[in-house]
Amino acid sequence: MIILGVDPGLTRCGVGVIEAGASRRLSFIHVDVVRSAPEESQDLRLLTIFNGLSAKMDAFSPDAVSIERVFAQSNRNTVLGTAQAAGLAMLAAAQRGIPVALHTPTEAKLAISGNGKAEKIQMERMVTTILRLNQLPKPADAADALALAICHALRPGGALQGGEREQHLTAAQRQWTTASQKAARSRGVGRGM
Amino acid sequence: MIILGVDPGLTRCGVGVIEAGASRRLSFIHVDVVRSAPEESQDLRLLTIFNGLSAKMDAFSPDAVSIERVFAQSNRNTVLGTAQAAGLAMLAAAQRGIPVALHTPTEAKLAISGNGKAEKIQMERMVTTILRLNQLPKPADAADALALAICHALRPGGALQGGEREQHLTAAQRQWTTASQKAARSRGVGRGM
Repeated sequence: MIILGVDPGLTRCGVGVIEAGASRRLSFIHVDVVRSAPEESQDLRLLTIFNGLSAKMDAFSPDAVSIERVFAQSNRNTVLGTAQAAGLAMLAAAQRGIPVALHTPTEAKLAISGNGKAEKIQMERMVTTILRLNQLPKPADAADALALAICHALRPGGALQGGEREQHLTAAQRQWTTASQKAARSRGVGRGM
Repeated sequence: MIILGVDPGLTRCGVGVIEAGASRRLSFIHVDVVRSAPEESQDLRLLTIFNGLSAKMDAFSPDAVSIERVFAQSNRNTVLGTAQAAGLAMLAAAQRGIPVALHTPTEAKLAISGNGKAEKIQMERMVTTILRLNQLPKPADAADALALAICHALRPGGALQGGEREQHLTAAQRQWTTASQKAARSRGVGRGM
């Protein structure tokens, strides 16, 4: 199962692709950042991001797209552009009939590191370890997109099941199941997004 | 000059089309609401809105698209969906090479009624008068999309110039020029949107 993670942004939109294989392993496939120039008009920036994300989906034919859930109370200066980039990722997936999942940053951190408040460098190291890379993914901020893809593979009911999934979970990571279910229950509130 | 106004929303996205003619008149062409079902998943809702807006642009081949500017401090329950719908309208326009303009609700109210805090019913009546319609546009909330198109036609430097434009302006409406210029100066702050 190929999973494409998207860390949405209007200036930098991270894309990470992994394979959750029958070999019970998560494998690295690709990481990149789709960029738009802040000096361009907003409509052209959105077009650039949309074309970039569409090209990635065409190149890797993911079975699922995992996108960071954006919250209205996020950074006021960037939240609307972030929400729009997330919307474009959803649109590009929907146009191709690819299922979309939204995961919160806390869910991703818990899934990867077992700590919902993990620091950025800790997340980058764990992504590197889980995907058995020799060095941190570059550019570094693209690790978040890989984390979203991994989070989706490790989620309850996800690509890896039962014993396979247990291999990837530390005791602490199992907290994530609880947190994730809690988030799912409170999700009704955010449906207007 | 054909102008297509968009009042963005994820559940209801208003579309209004007018012509700013050489006859010094603004003429009504079309009004409608593109809808998506709240019970659908967000990615499919965005696809529905995007396809609806794209179809309108193909049907009316506007020379400009005028979209309501969304602010991060808007209603938290709907702001992200509204921003995403606005983003899709920008994307659909950019894909067709149609210039995009963003106007604030205050700009639209001042342009139409001369009052930046005009009530909804006052706006609907003024839109009806300016476009010489026999009755309020239906559905009523689509009047906002027509107001955005009219606002774009009447803006300083817009489709109607000098004497032509003066015909459409009351003394009070001229306040708008000042308010609009003020908004333009402070716009740098919102560039991250």
